[in-house]
Amino acid sequence: MTNLRIPGPIPVPDDILETMSWQMINHRGPEFKDILFRTTEGVKRVFETKNDVFIMTSSGTGAMEAAIVNTLSPGDKIVNVSVGVFGARFGEIASVFGAEVVKLDFPYGTAVDLDKLRDTLNAHPDIKAVLVTHNETSTGVTNDLQAIAAVAKREFGKLVLVDGISSVCSIPLSTDAWGCDVVATASQKGWMLPPGLAFISFSEDAWEAHAEAKMPRFYFDMSAYKRYFEIGQPPYTPAISLMFALDLALQKIEAEGIGSVFERHFSMAQMTRDGIKKLGLTLFPRDESIASNTVTAINVPEGVDASKLIGILRTEHDIVLSGGQASLSGKIFRIGHMGYTTAEEIQEVMDALAVALPKVGFSPTRIEA
Amino acid sequence: MTNLRIPGPIPVPDDILETMSWQMINHRGPEFKDILFRTTEGVKRVFETKNDVFIMTSSGTGAMEAAIVNTLSPGDKIVNVSVGVFGARFGEIASVFGAEVVKLDFPYGTAVDLDKLRDTLNAHPDIKAVLVTHNETSTGVTNDLQAIAAVAKREFGKLVLVDGISSVCSIPLSTDAWGCDVVATASQKGWMLPPGLAFISFSEDAWEAHAEAKMPRFYFDMSAYKRYFEIGQPPYTPAISLMFALDLALQKIEAEGIGSVFERHFSMAQMTRDGIKKLGLTLFPRDESIASNTVTAINVPEGVDASKLIGILRTEHDIVLSGGQASLSGKIFRIGHMGYTTAEEIQEVMDALAVALPKVGFSPTRIEA
Repeated sequence: MTNLRIPGPIPVPDDILETMSWQMINHRGPEFKDILFRTTEGVKRVFETKNDVFIMTSSGTGAMEAAIVNTLSPGDKIVNVSVGVFGARFGEIASVFGAEVVKLDFPYGTAVDLDKLRDTLNAHPDIKAVLVTHNETSTGVTNDLQAIAAVAKREFGKLVLVDGISSVCSIPLSTDAWGCDVVATASQKGWMLPPGLAFISFSEDAWEAHAEAKMPRFYFDMSAYKRYFEIGQPPYTPAISLMFALDLALQKIEAEGIGSVFERHFSMAQMTRDGIKKLGLTLFPRDESIASNTVTAINVPEGVDASKLIGILRTEHDIVLSGGQASLSGKIFRIGHMGYTTAEEIQEVMDALAVALPKVGFSPTRIEA
Repeated sequence: MTNLRIPGPIPVPDDILETMSWQMINHRGPEFKDILFRTTEGVKRVFETKNDVFIMTSSGTGAMEAAIVNTLSPGDKIVNVSVGVFGARFGEIASVFGAEVVKLDFPYGTAVDLDKLRDTLNAHPDIKAVLVTHNETSTGVTNDLQAIAAVAKREFGKLVLVDGISSVCSIPLSTDAWGCDVVATASQKGWMLPPGLAFISFSEDAWEAHAEAKMPRFYFDMSAYKRYFEIGQPPYTPAISLMFALDLALQKIEAEGIGSVFERHFSMAQMTRDGIKKLGLTLFPRDESIASNTVTAINVPEGVDASKLIGILRTEHDIVLSGGQASLSGKIFRIGHMGYTTAEEIQEVMDALAVALPKVGFSPTRIEA
């Protein structure tokens, strides 16, 4: 059994996988209506929101696009707060659709500095929205979203658009209490599902912005989703198999309790961080307090070929890790531990690293046997 | 076992459903690369194209949007050739993204009149593209796409954008030979798959148009799909389970032979048409020669409550049919027979109609027993 340890897709529990092979039903019939209503309520509880939540057939990137095109007009000024590859993508989408993007980039491996955000918002009083990544999988850093939203929303009254793709359902994110207007996420992360569904929340302020937002949109136009939801239907044919799976995943999450889900993620992450430190490796995030509980980014030791290390783990240990993206290629490697992850699986990675690292020229501190 | 007879989603064969519960794999690893390359080649063969074909995570509507935003700029004049609800949607998407839309609407139940298309193209020499639905599920009409494309492409040199959602893999569509620049389709139709994937082809002329096309796009930007395909990856996390299913579905389609797939659709459709005529019902399409081989639209007899008829079939016979959409609501009902459909399933619908029609005040011509 392959130990798939990348930051999504994640291994899916067997009972959830089984629902994926259920036969098709009419997506405009009463049975699907029940599923749509029940899953939407369940997703809302995970988001901790009383606002609208919609379920779409797309990857998380589609939901990021939806967050932007439903609330902004070409020419609107926004600040894109970025700490990595996915942060940059959020700003790129806004730019493609005609927003005037003020870039607030922080070095890879660091988190958002609130004072710099305040400075930017003071320097550009015409900024309409703050775009921010909650958990940046490319660097293994989690931003303090609660504090960022407090500055953006409470202090400055801006619209807060959140890429919560690798955080919602893994790391605490209290949509309403924190003042997040739009939160976008995707199924192949903490939700324990295969990829293919995206979820997005919309606050009242987001709907007010929507009424004036002129960016063109059709497939991702949330007003169609809202209109059809009234009659218990999605506007377009949904990925029915994934809706069956979501229905069961939500039952499992509720049975476990969302607090326990967060604790489980914390404990798997802590075990990973402790394990790699014992091996003499170092975390890529500059400070352990900002290290993500869904993916751990690790510096590739001096002189080690990262792709060779990852290759050995894959071919000799059946363990799949991720390398670094873009400019981080070759400099870091990443261990995913979101969703359905056990201590045994993390231990297996550590044991394999202890065997593989010497083969690529690095002597782990911990000597086995 | 429910007899799901709507124009998609369609019942999926058991062996394909089984692949939907396979465990996740790395979408940026070698195993997925093989699947992506193999399925893309298979989809190309079904499209009968040597051009690029891309696989996206979305419904068919997403692929319709992709066809438009990748080839047009705001202000471009297009003619939207429509014979029903989905034809209207194609034009609406173009309009939302800023195209100047010349509407060429034909009455519901009829097909495209080539002379009127020629008149429109002559009257508006600045038209850049012709948007057309191959098979209109809302009215059960199939347009003569080969002839339409010949006029649009060969006679007038226009870009031809095709909604082939309910036709590709059910009805012959020869993308390259007919001169179709972009063809969009979706998985939950003749492909025998659950919904969630969309496929789109791009001709060289489409790529030339893409280079100048200024409509904003990100999730549906085909240049990202093309760039990533070079390294055997999708740009965004794909619906992996559906890719496993597509891989098997294509094997089954090739084993059967695409010619046999088309014949199977024709024979199921003919059986449906013959059956409803024997019951004394009439086809909604004005002429049987334009009646679709994927869905049969039937006039609701005078005085019959369509929703009551559909309700009886659902609750008393476990058969799910579709009603009419928009202005056709209450006026027609529809029997889907695309993809994996057997003669027994069609016979079951006819037998149930024979029993149910008298209950809603219509005496079938054919008396059972």
